[in-house]
Amino acid sequence: MGISVDTFFLERNGQGTLQAQLQQLIAEGILSGRFHVGEKLPSSRKLAAHLGVSRITVTLAYTELLANDYLTAKGRSGYYVSENAPVPPTYAPVRRDNESVDWDRAFARRFSDGDVLTKPSNWRDYRYPFIYGQVDRKLFDHANWRLCAVRALGHKDFHSLTGDYVDQDDPLLLEFIARHTLPRRGIVARPEEILITLGAQNALWLASRILLNRNRRAAIEDPCYYALRDLLIHSDCQLSYLKVDREGLLPDTIPDDTDVIFTTPSHQCPTTATMPVDRRNALLSRARELDAMIVEDDYEFEMSFLGAPSPALRSMDRDGRVIYVGSFSKSLFPGLRLGYMVGSEPFIREARALRSLVLRHPPGHMQRTAAYFLSLGHYDAQIRRMSKTLQRRREAIEEAIKQYGLTVAGRGMLGGSSIWMQAPERIDTTKLASDLQRQSVHIEPGEPFFSGPNRPQNYYRLGYSAISSARIGPGIQQIAETIRQS
Amino acid sequence: MGISVDTFFLERNGQGTLQAQLQQLIAEGILSGRFHVGEKLPSSRKLAAHLGVSRITVTLAYTELLANDYLTAKGRSGYYVSENAPVPPTYAPVRRDNESVDWDRAFARRFSDGDVLTKPSNWRDYRYPFIYGQVDRKLFDHANWRLCAVRALGHKDFHSLTGDYVDQDDPLLLEFIARHTLPRRGIVARPEEILITLGAQNALWLASRILLNRNRRAAIEDPCYYALRDLLIHSDCQLSYLKVDREGLLPDTIPDDTDVIFTTPSHQCPTTATMPVDRRNALLSRARELDAMIVEDDYEFEMSFLGAPSPALRSMDRDGRVIYVGSFSKSLFPGLRLGYMVGSEPFIREARALRSLVLRHPPGHMQRTAAYFLSLGHYDAQIRRMSKTLQRRREAIEEAIKQYGLTVAGRGMLGGSSIWMQAPERIDTTKLASDLQRQSVHIEPGEPFFSGPNRPQNYYRLGYSAISSARIGPGIQQIAETIRQS
Repeated sequence: MGISVDTFFLERNGQGTLQAQLQQLIAEGILSGRFHVGEKLPSSRKLAAHLGVSRITVTLAYTELLANDYLTAKGRSGYYVSENAPVPPTYAPVRRDNESVDWDRAFARRFSDGDVLTKPSNWRDYRYPFIYGQVDRKLFDHANWRLCAVRALGHKDFHSLTGDYVDQDDPLLLEFIARHTLPRRGIVARPEEILITLGAQNALWLASRILLNRNRRAAIEDPCYYALRDLLIHSDCQLSYLKVDREGLLPDTIPDDTDVIFTTPSHQCPTTATMPVDRRNALLSRARELDAMIVEDDYEFEMSFLGAPSPALRSMDRDGRVIYVGSFSKSLFPGLRLGYMVGSEPFIREARALRSLVLRHPPGHMQRTAAYFLSLGHYDAQIRRMSKTLQRRREAIEEAIKQYGLTVAGRGMLGGSSIWMQAPERIDTTKLASDLQRQSVHIEPGEPFFSGPNRPQNYYRLGYSAISSARIGPGIQQIAETIRQS
Repeated sequence: MGISVDTFFLERNGQGTLQAQLQQLIAEGILSGRFHVGEKLPSSRKLAAHLGVSRITVTLAYTELLANDYLTAKGRSGYYVSENAPVPPTYAPVRRDNESVDWDRAFARRFSDGDVLTKPSNWRDYRYPFIYGQVDRKLFDHANWRLCAVRALGHKDFHSLTGDYVDQDDPLLLEFIARHTLPRRGIVARPEEILITLGAQNALWLASRILLNRNRRAAIEDPCYYALRDLLIHSDCQLSYLKVDREGLLPDTIPDDTDVIFTTPSHQCPTTATMPVDRRNALLSRARELDAMIVEDDYEFEMSFLGAPSPALRSMDRDGRVIYVGSFSKSLFPGLRLGYMVGSEPFIREARALRSLVLRHPPGHMQRTAAYFLSLGHYDAQIRRMSKTLQRRREAIEEAIKQYGLTVAGRGMLGGSSIWMQAPERIDTTKLASDLQRQSVHIEPGEPFFSGPNRPQNYYRLGYSAISSARIGPGIQQIAETIRQS
């Protein structure tokens, strides 16, 4: 029996080359059991005519499937589904209409109750996306990233692509971070003092798990990055909230029984305040007094386009009590999922062991690609290009905010990629955001960043890393008008 | 001032093209502060002659660095280090010779005390690598993986490469697993019932954290995968150990107060026993009786080259009490770090929230590449090729074991990629492994797989997924002789 050409159907706007789409179509037909062993495929001429593709495309797809043992060729008579092709499922699945598990009993812990900022998945279609932490296609050096990735896919890098690192990291990436990235933050670290993590979130989580338990107290900034608060709540520790002013947290307000202080000195999240050197020294003294550890999230230090970044806390720390967290999510792209932490060797040893238990290691291919991108200078070039653009956008947003009479609650003195805003007290920015959504404007309500029972509802964040300068003014105008009418 | 050509030096056997190496050299010279703003680079003619490369190579490297703003060109006079090039570090790092942190006090938990199998990092240089779970270069379809990765690096996939999925996964990969992979295990699952994880290890860890706490009891197989035991120990739960026979764990021996049962029915790790369908039914009944959850690690089901794999426990479960864990580490490569878990929707919702806290999501690029590799049929073709080769190796190892009089303790009836061996009682296989190492033979001592205080020391594991058939006989002979002489 032959397979009719009518069962073949290429999707409009399908992904990949026509050959790949066709190959996929046939493979799926076999895998799903629609095409059976011994059935004859349509001739390349017929199928090409039916699909409106060139005959060579069909022939190439058939040849590839022949090499993969999906098809066999019988002389001139054509291509057939091979005996060696994978077999379709043979088990009749059980119906589970009435599951009997009592989930309230089964769960030892629940994790799905945290604050989340809901980013609309179609934010790219928004006319005014004041979204935070997403990549602007025009700012990312996609072409060179691709070249580096292709190099990392080559034969020489076979082991770094495929190998089980167990608890280790890519030595090239470690070395580059130690020799080039950290020295710019004033940090000297040997490879044994660095761990590659699956983004900054992963680093913060590892630190919390090692340094905290139910008998210990962590102090965090208020407002702060909600995902940090969420992970600390789930680490079962005691929590103190530290108000921040325009220079970040106030060291005097750290409670006496604090074991670990989490802070974002470069750009406080979300107020974008930069902590001056004096206050950094005061923070280190206070930590020494308490014998507390500090976890420094060196958030957005790369975005210091308005002035040189201050040295990292870790670079000023003589005791070894600062754990430094860096990330490539903001400077490269969030989907990369690569960050790093720096700490004294005993700490990194524990973090490495814990990471190995939880996930082993970040994929070697992502590490090697990043190592190439960094070492070829593309990273620095990109940061410079980004900084120039962000600076222009920053000027545009400052001007528009002034023009339309909105109120800034916090802006990074050195740069950053967002501004922290305050609406009149009567405004609930969660509702405001949803009203603006209907006008194709995305803003981030501020409430999830605050802790405790009476959270202010009139703050919001405006990101300017994914919106063009030209759109900023009209977008701000929409926000101002919507606030006025609310 | 000109930069002398003498400061340029290409490493022999350096990685990447000559142009990339040269570019890297110059970028690093600038980043490290060796080359200063305004300094003139050697002419392309001079530098090409000095390095023994073609002049066009040097020119291309210069042009690329010009585009990246590292260099500027001044008419005909040549290339100079640009004013816009990144600046070298300006902070003098603090010395930390005498760190004062008391780590015994600082650590809330320690993780670095688990059992580890130390795999020599140079195992690829071993003549007889009976190593487990590493990729044989000859068995992996590197060329097609690369093609799929390049496709996933293209413009159409820009968002799946760079985007922040927050707590979501690549819809293409989820759909393929739901439609094609799981049906072969008899499992029907909607995308909401599937979570992509950073390998099986990550899935097991997520399950343990959701289902267990200090008041709950987990039952695990003995011997078992040591990294599973290690992560359960660190989850603070109570632990029971279940002896296994040639058909896996014995359901009757599961203690009455058990909350979660961890099992590897396809190929018990490390004995490779396959659990027959009768015993699977008995296990499900016992779990229902106890109202216990089951975590099924469907370990190496793809390696069933000696017979069709048995249906997964999850496919036989009417209650929704089985959490299914699958992985691509063995069938593709461990460095991929991709696995998946299937469970009822309330469970996957919690697992997704926890994964988001700990690491957000596996990198989009790895997910998309795997989706292409699977959907184009390369995955199934590779499994079939691998199975054929593993079958030949299995025959070779069985024959050699017989010929040289070694004792098998467990072998997979359906296949697998290792054999579980028993040496005479007097032999400590940890010492044996180190003796064999000097003869370029790698075996895995069995002690770490066992639990409790009196762990047998005379078992070992022979992997045959990374050693050629031709080497197997002589390798086994070496092992037999070394045992005889011990």
